[in-house]
Amino acid sequence: MSKDKKMRVAVIGASGYTGADLIRLAAGHPHIEIAELAANTHAGKPMASVFPHLLALGLPDLVTTEDVDWHDIDAVFCGLPHGTAQDIIAALPERLRIIDMSADFRLRDAAVYKNWYGRDHDAKGLLKTAVYGLSEHYRKEIAAARLTACPGCYPTAALLALIPLVGSDLIDAGDIVIDAKSGVSGAGRGLKQNTLFSEAGEGLSPYAIGSHRHAPEIEQELTAASGREVVVNFTPHLIPMSRGELLTCYVRLAGGKTVDDLRRELISVYKDKTFVRIVPDGVIPATQFVRGSNYCLIGLFADRIPGRAIVISTLDNLVKGSAGQALQNFNLMFGFAEETGLTQAPLFP
Amino acid sequence: MSKDKKMRVAVIGASGYTGADLIRLAAGHPHIEIAELAANTHAGKPMASVFPHLLALGLPDLVTTEDVDWHDIDAVFCGLPHGTAQDIIAALPERLRIIDMSADFRLRDAAVYKNWYGRDHDAKGLLKTAVYGLSEHYRKEIAAARLTACPGCYPTAALLALIPLVGSDLIDAGDIVIDAKSGVSGAGRGLKQNTLFSEAGEGLSPYAIGSHRHAPEIEQELTAASGREVVVNFTPHLIPMSRGELLTCYVRLAGGKTVDDLRRELISVYKDKTFVRIVPDGVIPATQFVRGSNYCLIGLFADRIPGRAIVISTLDNLVKGSAGQALQNFNLMFGFAEETGLTQAPLFP
Amino acid sequence: MSKDKKMRVAVIGASGYTGADLIRLAAGHPHIEIAELAANTHAGKPMASVFPHLLALGLPDLVTTEDVDWHDIDAVFCGLPHGTAQDIIAALPERLRIIDMSADFRLRDAAVYKNWYGRDHDAKGLLKTAVYGLSEHYRKEIAAARLTACPGCYPTAALLALIPLVGSDLIDAGDIVIDAKSGVSGAGRGLKQNTLFSEAGEGLSPYAIGSHRHAPEIEQELTAASGREVVVNFTPHLIPMSRGELLTCYVRLAGGKTVDDLRRELISVYKDKTFVRIVPDGVIPATQFVRGSNYCLIGLFADRIPGRAIVISTLDNLVKGSAGQALQNFNLMFGFAEETGLTQAPLFP
Amino acid sequence: MSKDKKMRVAVIGASGYTGADLIRLAAGHPHIEIAELAANTHAGKPMASVFPHLLALGLPDLVTTEDVDWHDIDAVFCGLPHGTAQDIIAALPERLRIIDMSADFRLRDAAVYKNWYGRDHDAKGLLKTAVYGLSEHYRKEIAAARLTACPGCYPTAALLALIPLVGSDLIDAGDIVIDAKSGVSGAGRGLKQNTLFSEAGEGLSPYAIGSHRHAPEIEQELTAASGREVVVNFTPHLIPMSRGELLTCYVRLAGGKTVDDLRRELISVYKDKTFVRIVPDGVIPATQFVRGSNYCLIGLFADRIPGRAIVISTLDNLVKGSAGQALQNFNLMFGFAEETGLTQAPLFP
Repeated sequence: MSKDKKMRVAVIGASGYTGADLIRLAAGHPHIEIAELAANTHAGKPMASVFPHLLALGLPDLVTTEDVDWHDIDAVFCGLPHGTAQDIIAALPERLRIIDMSADFRLRDAAVYKNWYGRDHDAKGLLKTAVYGLSEHYRKEIAAARLTACPGCYPTAALLALIPLVGSDLIDAGDIVIDAKSGVSGAGRGLKQNTLFSEAGEGLSPYAIGSHRHAPEIEQELTAASGREVVVNFTPHLIPMSRGELLTCYVRLAGGKTVDDLRRELISVYKDKTFVRIVPDGVIPATQFVRGSNYCLIGLFADRIPGRAIVISTLDNLVKGSAGQALQNFNLMFGFAEETGLTQAPLFP
Repeated sequence: MSKDKKMRVAVIGASGYTGADLIRLAAGHPHIEIAELAANTHAGKPMASVFPHLLALGLPDLVTTEDVDWHDIDAVFCGLPHGTAQDIIAALPERLRIIDMSADFRLRDAAVYKNWYGRDHDAKGLLKTAVYGLSEHYRKEIAAARLTACPGCYPTAALLALIPLVGSDLIDAGDIVIDAKSGVSGAGRGLKQNTLFSEAGEGLSPYAIGSHRHAPEIEQELTAASGREVVVNFTPHLIPMSRGELLTCYVRLAGGKTVDDLRRELISVYKDKTFVRIVPDGVIPATQFVRGSNYCLIGLFADRIPGRAIVISTLDNLVKGSAGQALQNFNLMFGFAEETGLTQAPLFP
Repeated sequence: MSKDKKMRVAVIGASGYTGADLIRLAAGHPHIEIAELAANTHAGKPMASVFPHLLALGLPDLVTTEDVDWHDIDAVFCGLPHGTAQDIIAALPERLRIIDMSADFRLRDAAVYKNWYGRDHDAKGLLKTAVYGLSEHYRKEIAAARLTACPGCYPTAALLALIPLVGSDLIDAGDIVIDAKSGVSGAGRGLKQNTLFSEAGEGLSPYAIGSHRHAPEIEQELTAASGREVVVNFTPHLIPMSRGELLTCYVRLAGGKTVDDLRRELISVYKDKTFVRIVPDGVIPATQFVRGSNYCLIGLFADRIPGRAIVISTLDNLVKGSAGQALQNFNLMFGFAEETGLTQAPLFP
Repeated sequence: MSKDKKMRVAVIGASGYTGADLIRLAAGHPHIEIAELAANTHAGKPMASVFPHLLALGLPDLVTTEDVDWHDIDAVFCGLPHGTAQDIIAALPERLRIIDMSADFRLRDAAVYKNWYGRDHDAKGLLKTAVYGLSEHYRKEIAAARLTACPGCYPTAALLALIPLVGSDLIDAGDIVIDAKSGVSGAGRGLKQNTLFSEAGEGLSPYAIGSHRHAPEIEQELTAASGREVVVNFTPHLIPMSRGELLTCYVRLAGGKTVDDLRRELISVYKDKTFVRIVPDGVIPATQFVRGSNYCLIGLFADRIPGRAIVISTLDNLVKGSAGQALQNFNLMFGFAEETGLTQAPLFP
């Protein structure tokens, strides 16, 4: 890839939070030209009227997906909701490479998809070829993929912490409890009573107990890593903050193993990975330390119950949990350095 | 007790959040006259200069603990920090009945106290006679007590949910994970970097992993309830809200037991208890629904992992978790109806 | 009125924030029995399914307004949106006394109403008889009223501070700038993008600049107080908190007058009024100090520009700014002590 | 300046919020090498132990100011508190160019400094040569300066909006009311009761009414722009958010002038300035739209009072209000394009 070459990209579903954050990041990427922005309900408007924080970027106006001029486009980022994405992606010119941030191509098994999303999958052929875009673990597959399905925010945080531990048999894959906490932006920009400021503010609530759609995604990948059927407890909570999520994972150590064994394994797996950091002993990961950035911080702690351990993983749900990982996958797919456009430090306070 | 009789009460440690919330509640109690307020660092000031929200209550000015006129005082509420409370309480006139909101008399075993609080207990004799003030479970003992040690906020929420389950052998007392989330007021009004708005806001962080002083308190009571030595995982998290806490407890069902068995047991135990509510199936407890009130809401949920369940307990850390339970204990000790002065509905939004 | 007599009240529009806060307060009022709750979109549901924080109050289930049994009802509180309230109120049995929290009967001039609310007033006859329910200033009229129109939240805060100053010619009624800040609950429970947590959180924005419907209401009353046509600058801002509002009023002193003259006048006017407090010199009003309560705090400050002064007024928009003042007006209308059911201290922190 | 040349910079006062935000931005600046970080109270520690969000930047450990090796350093950023900065800056090697973010060199008149900061200025000679670093208005002077005194956050927002209007006689310089609202990070990382989460959260309060130290700074520059002695009303408010500030300025139009005249003037003055944006008619500036970025948004609105107008200015207090403007000034001083390292889009939500 020539050093100065710019890829011309289109973003469809540009009016949601993940679309907007993708644009925020892509605008600073040296090899990206944002050529087309599509959002059907806002077609005809300047992007800055939908997201005023982007007003200085000189972006193209929004068009409908139908009106996108695919000629000369190299890559498509898709920020559409699940269910909507699959048909539109299936209709894209074969030549295009696609990074999908929806949930439509994450579950490999169409029956599992139907079970959790309540509808048949309309693009089963495409589903077979899609690559699960957990950048650090499927690097080669992503590089070769036409369609990359970026993981959900919770699965990204969970899997970066747990895949190496399950895969190396350091923990019991049958006894994993994931207590997850997320900021409100994870629920998107759609209008819902429970995400109003007066409802979500100054309080916290669990939600989707035992029924969150990120559970089967986590289980799919842990099953693959462990070679046995894994079922996890995954209990998310809505926290009064806009961005960020943190997972407190309660695990049982395999016989004779220690927290130090876990830490050593994770350090070894991620030693050359820019965006996954095992924090030093004594440092406690917090969402404040990753806000706005593509980093995932992981910490390990002894449990007071003998034979158990606590693994904490935190990331920004809109960046490493969505748009940032999407851009990271774009880099892998187009042969750029993986970190390109993604090394902004977190914003604190 | 005559219907119109007013008890004259003193509050020592009146300049902290628990002291202030006790005063807020006590000011509306029909049988309490707030006679003396002590706070050494603010002695001489009007209470409204320390807590302007109390300016309309016509409160006495603050004095030092030394300057309190104990003559004619019937009861003392103590809102001092642990370590400070024990000596002052030990020096109080024998005649006085005391409701202590500090941690100094919660742990029955002075050795455990020393281990967790890093100092010898100075009032071991008094410690022997203190009653653990979990109102719903030690009603008789509290009624007869001279000194009631109000439970910590986390233990109150944990024990109300777990004592009946452990006590009836419905769950495995050896496999209890308590993921706890609290608002920032739980850390008190003292100046700490991590409780500054810019540090705690728009983010969340675990803290005191494996080392929080409420763990031994929970274990003491679960051990008593189960008849075996219980060790729990207790992992607290700091949430960007001022009030409220919620515990997500991950438990293993005893052989053949179901979530419905757990629900039935809790409903049975608390059917006559005003302040502990088992929410209907389908309702999810949230801190928003108890803010400012003395209620504790408990919900039960199936786990996706077979043989496990999720028990969620929420309360206002400053009310049922501290000042409200203190007032409830006062009612028990002085023969008033348990609910007196405590039936304010929660403040939402 | 017999000391133990309970009035049977109905609340229509019970599913909004003002309705819910009225219920929270009324449930603790010794002379109120909440007999009927109406909310058309939620008819048939238990109130606790719409507002779980009220679950312990033993409330009647919601019905449609049509299904309310008016027989034996003494008073109606109306928490409907403007536009909806007028027709429903006009159709109520003549015998009923009504406390309306909507904007429909606040503006005495139907032409002004049409101009600001974009529709003809459907109940002009009733409008003529309605009394503007600013409790401290229209006490006699409210006591005699059949229909009391409770002021908007902003007008309450503005008028309590400014009516005495304008009425006594201490300030120039032609040069009043009101910079207003409100929490998000003021926008109600309806679904709007700008009141989502992720939009309103961690930021602040002015809104309705020069076009807020509370401006004509403020002007109506200041015009009445001053005897000249008053136009004010009124600029509201949305603040990332749920409850509370604070108005910073920039005024020009009449010739030779000082801030102390203003303070003396306000102290004199409100010396016997429980809920309006002129804070001592040096104390700065803040919304934190009135949260959940019916108090309005007013402070006065010198301006660095000679001949000008700053008047700050703060209250809880849902209490003194709506439901609390409604209950205060109920007390006036039915001959109860004005403070009945309203002396809860503010909730802080 | 060679395109690849890197300046070696030192940051003293690196443990405060402005220091940390300067480092966040400077780390992405293509012509900066962060060579030395000084913070006396944390000397010897890794920067990531003081600010964990910076852990991926590979920064040098903290040293005392005394231990900085000035050899080979090209520029110094100073994030020390006022009072502390002047002596340390005065002692720096003559060769160094300095960008000071403290208040010590902003007020040109040492007597005014003494009056507002309560102490004699220790470096009056240096004070004479310091340039007020309002980038857009003192570009040439800054380019030539050895010592640039970056404006306070409030003055930056106020002056960018008002200097052109006062300077062109479009508004009455004698009747300017500035109602300012700021997030809590403006108060710094020091421990103060009023910036605790539980105190500042879920509420808002005015502070330093008539006595804020940014008033004389605003007056100094408006006096210079207008040629007459200007006194302003400047009333700041603490808002429950971490970052961002917004000023609502109430101004009187000069005879016959209109809001459109004001808008035209501002558009003309800032048409080539990247970071100052006059928002289109109908758009309302909000802090959410500048968070984390170096932009200042200005909007103009008609007042309902004839002959008056409202000017709204918003920026991120830590970026354009401090560290970002400091970096912008560095660019001017060292001949880099003004925008270098500063074009990150705002972070929203």
